[in-house]
Amino acid sequence: MREDIVEALKNIVGDDWVVNNPEAVKSYLEDETEPGVKVEPAPATDVVVVKPVNAQEVSEILKLANREGVPVYVRGGGTGLACGCVPSKPGVVISMERMKEIEIDKENLMAVVGAGVTLGELLKAAAKEGFFFPPHPGDEGAQIGGLIACNAVGARAVRTGPMRNYVLGLEVVLPTGEILRLGGRLVKDNTGAGKLMHLFIGTEGILGVITKAVLRLSPQYKATATMVVPFNDRRACLNTVPEILQSGIIPLGIEYVQKKEVELTAKRLGLEWPSKEGEYYLLIMLAEFNEDTLYAQLEEIASICRKNGSLEPLLAETPEEQTNILKIRSEIYPTLKPYMEDSPDITVPPANIGKLIEELEKLERKYDIYIPLFGHAADGNLHPVIPVKEGWTKEQYEKLRMEMYQIAVKLGGVTTGEHGVGEARKKYLKLNLSNEAIETLRKIKKVLETTPSH
Amino acid sequence: MREDIVEALKNIVGDDWVVNNPEAVKSYLEDETEPGVKVEPAPATDVVVVKPVNAQEVSEILKLANREGVPVYVRGGGTGLACGCVPSKPGVVISMERMKEIEIDKENLMAVVGAGVTLGELLKAAAKEGFFFPPHPGDEGAQIGGLIACNAVGARAVRTGPMRNYVLGLEVVLPTGEILRLGGRLVKDNTGAGKLMHLFIGTEGILGVITKAVLRLSPQYKATATMVVPFNDRRACLNTVPEILQSGIIPLGIEYVQKKEVELTAKRLGLEWPSKEGEYYLLIMLAEFNEDTLYAQLEEIASICRKNGSLEPLLAETPEEQTNILKIRSEIYPTLKPYMEDSPDITVPPANIGKLIEELEKLERKYDIYIPLFGHAADGNLHPVIPVKEGWTKEQYEKLRMEMYQIAVKLGGVTTGEHGVGEARKKYLKLNLSNEAIETLRKIKKVLETTPSH
Repeated sequence: MREDIVEALKNIVGDDWVVNNPEAVKSYLEDETEPGVKVEPAPATDVVVVKPVNAQEVSEILKLANREGVPVYVRGGGTGLACGCVPSKPGVVISMERMKEIEIDKENLMAVVGAGVTLGELLKAAAKEGFFFPPHPGDEGAQIGGLIACNAVGARAVRTGPMRNYVLGLEVVLPTGEILRLGGRLVKDNTGAGKLMHLFIGTEGILGVITKAVLRLSPQYKATATMVVPFNDRRACLNTVPEILQSGIIPLGIEYVQKKEVELTAKRLGLEWPSKEGEYYLLIMLAEFNEDTLYAQLEEIASICRKNGSLEPLLAETPEEQTNILKIRSEIYPTLKPYMEDSPDITVPPANIGKLIEELEKLERKYDIYIPLFGHAADGNLHPVIPVKEGWTKEQYEKLRMEMYQIAVKLGGVTTGEHGVGEARKKYLKLNLSNEAIETLRKIKKVLETTPSH
Repeated sequence: MREDIVEALKNIVGDDWVVNNPEAVKSYLEDETEPGVKVEPAPATDVVVVKPVNAQEVSEILKLANREGVPVYVRGGGTGLACGCVPSKPGVVISMERMKEIEIDKENLMAVVGAGVTLGELLKAAAKEGFFFPPHPGDEGAQIGGLIACNAVGARAVRTGPMRNYVLGLEVVLPTGEILRLGGRLVKDNTGAGKLMHLFIGTEGILGVITKAVLRLSPQYKATATMVVPFNDRRACLNTVPEILQSGIIPLGIEYVQKKEVELTAKRLGLEWPSKEGEYYLLIMLAEFNEDTLYAQLEEIASICRKNGSLEPLLAETPEEQTNILKIRSEIYPTLKPYMEDSPDITVPPANIGKLIEELEKLERKYDIYIPLFGHAADGNLHPVIPVKEGWTKEQYEKLRMEMYQIAVKLGGVTTGEHGVGEARKKYLKLNLSNEAIETLRKIKKVLETTPSH
């Protein structure tokens, strides 16, 4: 990186917070993206990492980069699956790790958090005051800024929706350096939050840098349980999901997992998967106001499952049992990672999930492979794994990935429900968005980058 | 309106769907905005009304208007309170009244609706299939397109949030005529719905015309009740609200009303207000999975209220009792309308609602007036009435309105929580948005209007 730019960055944030020796920079060049879709040929290494502490410093950095025409990569927890924070060209990596403000506003049931606060830190601070934060995309090392920019979701979104639904206020720095403060400690706002704030949620940081947020919290639920429902029949298992939702019960989450993957994961973790029967499982997470309601719901769900041919449902009531089941669920992905080329984030209308599985079974026969499957059944969002197969070329993997995406589109779905587009999956965006829509995004990006506001 | 434009519009939609005789046009020139902030000196009358039936026709109309430089006003149900659909200059009014498609998708718990479908029509169609649609901004004549463009909210949003949280897909026509289809029958989508769709929600139609939407539905609740809690003390009444929310119970709605206004309204409707005691009331709307939960919650809420000095809570259980109470609540605004100059939509952090009331009481003393009060207590959103006062000039009303707005801002609030900005309240937007934020919106609007996409 040009010496004058490194010096200018040091002037903005102080010498201690600019990193450009190659060894120290290394850990800022990767995220968790699957091997098959990483940035090619490799991330840029001619990179300087800068660690601002507030919006004002971010503003100075963006003005500098914009003036000098240097690309900027904003980095949160580095837990993304689309190379959204990976420098594809030489440039400046802005790491948000120092923006650690957390205030729990008990009276308003809100939290005011810096972009660099991790999900784990937020959950801990909220729990200490008796609050809960529902969205939970697996890795608690994810940072709030990234969760918002990527509109993260995860397993606990059936009732309450994606990250977007929890954001009440944002501080955002535009590419030209203006700092916008939109929304606030407000449940309703049809000025800044209503008009402009949502443009920065889900757009993965391409329109501005999120530096702080006001988030809505939930009170702690008083009764929680996780039910494991085993099935011998895959279709019966998945077809049960819409019936549960139509019954009027909206759980926190309904996950789909399979014997092979949960047993492999449990073994790796030194845990035991609680169910000895069945091949296919629904994990149903309930959280309610009191135990009576919880049990009434569990009973009704169990009866719907039995009617659909399930084996006997198992109930995890103690926090430890629940934690272990969810730990196994969360760790399926990392367990399979060494064996996977990719794991597309395909999402279809929830009622089409049975059809999606049928199509994936056809692919297994066509390509003579086993496709491990798991995902958010009630959201129509599955993460089928493209396994590493000896002797396969890049082209063969790409052909299979493309077929998966095309199946999703044919079923009224999209190529990404929650993982986002990033650098890694940009080329697939046109499967879902028309040229006009992509062009509209591009126009907005360009006008925010180039026209000074004054 | 220029004859060639009227002819071109007839070519697009057919002769029957273009209206330009002054008598027939009249009903398209007003909405429900309060008298004190109407478009001045009066709405334009040199207006042609056009009634397209689909996105393609809207596209042709927008291309024509854009080419000819003629202003366009999109009109839904005309129930707005900010002159958002009122032609302030000669131009084309696009009425969405013919876009009446409704499909209830039972399997996905969704509805696909044309922009011209009214809230009443949607509620009826959903109920027929066993579904419910929570957002309810009072007037059921409001149309879906307008509800989305204005991110409407209403009394039933405490648990589930504003209209935005229910929109899963949109068909939108850009000012240059491109038709975008974003999102779909998808609970999760980080392509079109994640990236671009929300730009058109809450921006009141200035960036594009919404022609169709996919909405999320709820299952019907199995047990509902409305509790009326009387208080003699105003502060005690309002301070009870955050305590209820912190207890872990999130009702559908918590409304604040006063004896004077509910009795006046009940009398006008030929109904009776159920409570004979107290001056100040909370209306608490609960909807739960079963009666046991409902009663457990009612008991806990009643105990919180008593601890805070309430008189004996009254329970409305039959649908008829509940309907009558909510009817009285909804009709307060129309009942007061003949006596009001304005009713600002001020919103503060929920915990500041007590302070807001204190400040409004100071205004009552300062101006020697009575300010009727009602609103969405749990959302920090009140609609204080500026009453008509004999002998007052426009300037005196404006001074009082401005003081109310400044109180809201001082308390961390905004000038509009749900009614929007429109033509009527544009000049107050700068109390909440910086020049940079307003300029950013303007830049986006301009680039969508003027740059062709290809």
